[in-house]
Amino acid sequence: MDPKKFRKAAHRLVDWMADYLEDPTGYPVLPDVQPGEIRERIADDPPERPEEMEAIVSDFFDQILPGLTHWNHPGFFAYFPANHSPPSVLAEMLTAAIGAQCMSWETSPAATELEQKMMQWLAELLELPGDFTGVIQDTASSSTLVSLLTAREKATKGEVGRSGMREGGDDWVIYASEQAHSSVDKAVKLAGFGLNNLRNIAVDDRFAMRPEALRSAIEADIDAGRTPLAVIATVGTTSSTAVDPLEQIGDIADAYDCWLHVDAAYAGSAAILPEKRWILDGIDRADTFVFNPHKWLMTNFDCSAYFVRDVDALVGSFRASPEYLKTVHDDEVVNFRDWGIPLGRRFRALKLWFVLRSYGADGLRTILRRHIELAEQFRQQVQDHPDFEVMAPSPFGLVCFRYLPRSGDPEALNKQLLAQLRQRDELHLTHTRLGEDFCLRMSIGQWHTRQQHVESAWETIQQIAAEL
Amino acid sequence: MDPKKFRKAAHRLVDWMADYLEDPTGYPVLPDVQPGEIRERIADDPPERPEEMEAIVSDFFDQILPGLTHWNHPGFFAYFPANHSPPSVLAEMLTAAIGAQCMSWETSPAATELEQKMMQWLAELLELPGDFTGVIQDTASSSTLVSLLTAREKATKGEVGRSGMREGGDDWVIYASEQAHSSVDKAVKLAGFGLNNLRNIAVDDRFAMRPEALRSAIEADIDAGRTPLAVIATVGTTSSTAVDPLEQIGDIADAYDCWLHVDAAYAGSAAILPEKRWILDGIDRADTFVFNPHKWLMTNFDCSAYFVRDVDALVGSFRASPEYLKTVHDDEVVNFRDWGIPLGRRFRALKLWFVLRSYGADGLRTILRRHIELAEQFRQQVQDHPDFEVMAPSPFGLVCFRYLPRSGDPEALNKQLLAQLRQRDELHLTHTRLGEDFCLRMSIGQWHTRQQHVESAWETIQQIAAEL
Repeated sequence: MDPKKFRKAAHRLVDWMADYLEDPTGYPVLPDVQPGEIRERIADDPPERPEEMEAIVSDFFDQILPGLTHWNHPGFFAYFPANHSPPSVLAEMLTAAIGAQCMSWETSPAATELEQKMMQWLAELLELPGDFTGVIQDTASSSTLVSLLTAREKATKGEVGRSGMREGGDDWVIYASEQAHSSVDKAVKLAGFGLNNLRNIAVDDRFAMRPEALRSAIEADIDAGRTPLAVIATVGTTSSTAVDPLEQIGDIADAYDCWLHVDAAYAGSAAILPEKRWILDGIDRADTFVFNPHKWLMTNFDCSAYFVRDVDALVGSFRASPEYLKTVHDDEVVNFRDWGIPLGRRFRALKLWFVLRSYGADGLRTILRRHIELAEQFRQQVQDHPDFEVMAPSPFGLVCFRYLPRSGDPEALNKQLLAQLRQRDELHLTHTRLGEDFCLRMSIGQWHTRQQHVESAWETIQQIAAEL
Repeated sequence: MDPKKFRKAAHRLVDWMADYLEDPTGYPVLPDVQPGEIRERIADDPPERPEEMEAIVSDFFDQILPGLTHWNHPGFFAYFPANHSPPSVLAEMLTAAIGAQCMSWETSPAATELEQKMMQWLAELLELPGDFTGVIQDTASSSTLVSLLTAREKATKGEVGRSGMREGGDDWVIYASEQAHSSVDKAVKLAGFGLNNLRNIAVDDRFAMRPEALRSAIEADIDAGRTPLAVIATVGTTSSTAVDPLEQIGDIADAYDCWLHVDAAYAGSAAILPEKRWILDGIDRADTFVFNPHKWLMTNFDCSAYFVRDVDALVGSFRASPEYLKTVHDDEVVNFRDWGIPLGRRFRALKLWFVLRSYGADGLRTILRRHIELAEQFRQQVQDHPDFEVMAPSPFGLVCFRYLPRSGDPEALNKQLLAQLRQRDELHLTHTRLGEDFCLRMSIGQWHTRQQHVESAWETIQQIAAEL
């Protein structure tokens, strides 16, 4: 492609992007496609000769767009939000055009230094302890793995890294609530601890970890000759946004000399609100903390903010300094390649800078408060309806609920309800299970979502339920 | 930011992006900044109130741009290339605007199915064995870790994942050449094998792994009661682009029942050229294979193509299926979240589709051949100069060389040469060490780079050297 043709094509795309960002409601949230349908539209073989960009863009609109799920549709109430926003998209455009590889300070000094500053800004917005240092990871899943690997190396003073788990390994146990995210299971497996050595600690009736159950589990393991290594606390669980009590968990972790990682992937953003800052009370006892601006802070995926207290333990576990990566300033600068798993790194701080300045702290607080208020209104309406039940507290933007008429099998009914909701173009919800109960998750947090979208969703839900 | 203001700001950025993509030579390759200098320009605190996009964009140009390293400058001869290209940037713009989270098929069907198809296209272009299945990972570093973790789980039928390395672990040893990338060391540490259990196999005078040394090392370990687990072969080492002989290494891996991972991060792209396809002779013996379209195939970082033979072994090691991620089509579709470490995934296949169609196989071959020819010319000139020495074979775009006049300490002289080259705005080179010898790496592979840039670099190098 002749670089000169880029300008014309890019302007054309920008007009579509602007329309899409202004109003994506022309598209169904969930596409109406069957498995394999998109694949069949794409040629089996790469073309031998160059094709015109007009044809490629036109195929994008005809073949790909109808197969996309629109995460930024105001009726997207599934999972947790994965927001972007106009300022974030602008920054991503620049990041793509620059195409810098930000593995070391020297490979793009401004990328490293802006990342340091943006992590400082986030720490300030969330009122994190002053001795936390931040770095951008791709996801909270990776961050949790990085945290457990660091705990492993710190506990053995690097002996596992040098000699392997067999020689250096102790009979370690990891603790998390039974409501913790599946990435905890995955990290425990990958880090070599073994899933059988993860204790799924019981939760209270609000689905938060019961500190006394944690203490009992730790003591039972010690009695059995095992070594408690790490506790993972969750602030805002995925199923129901339960908040594990950090202060009490922190005290226990301290008492038994356990590493403490706090996974606040979704809910951490809410700590920018003074009225929600309580969710991080006790964070001063944590060794590591992660939350995802790419979920609820209007910043394109991927942008996971990972904070650590002991930078030396992190870098000591992940550093690799071959000759070909050495630079003249290595002793004076931070090389973020040594702060996580991948060597290569995109320039991800730029979108945070654009978002945090464009909205301002105040603007972001306004958006989050709107989502929380909409969730509160929705919860109230569900609660007031005789045939619906709210299944868990809803301190943020998520309401777990189910249809519970006087008769009928609740699980079958709610599965039918969900299946019929899937047929609707204007909204998308997903489900979970709380205890034994199958329930629907109404997750309100997309930046376009306003009162009318939530109200219309509630109308649709009631209407379908009534006809089941 | 009012979405309506996006259009104006985006058009303005596109004009800058188009200028930049057309000709980035107005910027010094390496910025003239000292550690801390950019950080000082950025406010210490996030703003409370929203700021205008005009001000933010203007600060980008004034404060950030002067601190960036320009990886897409034609004089960027450092490391390996991290190319983008106009079609790739167009696709990244769309990816950012859509902002889809592509963890599962249902969370964006077209993203999953296009990724499957693009991996098929790449497999065809590289003539990979028909039983390889591909997935996009972020980096080759992560891919190598994923490969070793899969080998660990497969060897123990998942017992490490269930019970931990202590119970399930054998006395494992991993093998790679002493020229393998630092990410191999990192992966061996992180996967819990311990760096002491990585054998750095000797290389021949072309810096390629010596198969007989591999065999001896394996036999010595077996004699000592150890269990050889995995061999990592490199096609195009980072220091000098040496090519480990896959056929012989594959035979040995087969004979001792070892897992074989092939790291072709940089050089793999060259296998699209019939005259270079020999570098993958023997790839049919590999269990996993990785190469980075984000290096030499004009595709923005991150886009690492990871191919596996045993999908079940991969997915069995990485799968997590909590209730809240289950979808109705799970039995019929591929959910790429289970093919690697992170749960969340960007829509990365789109840029490959744009690039492969926009250039066509033929167009990509033309660019790679140009780079290889420029490297060959450069190598010839260095070789013909009485005071310079070529340090290694150069089958791709990289030439390792040093200044070696009749007198003077070669290491000191070449460090001075590099330091003075760093002062120049129009080019950037990095170094390595081959054996004991400090040498410069002239890496030719940026899509803008033409004959005049390489010739001018050679002039500059000679001139500075002559004045040392």
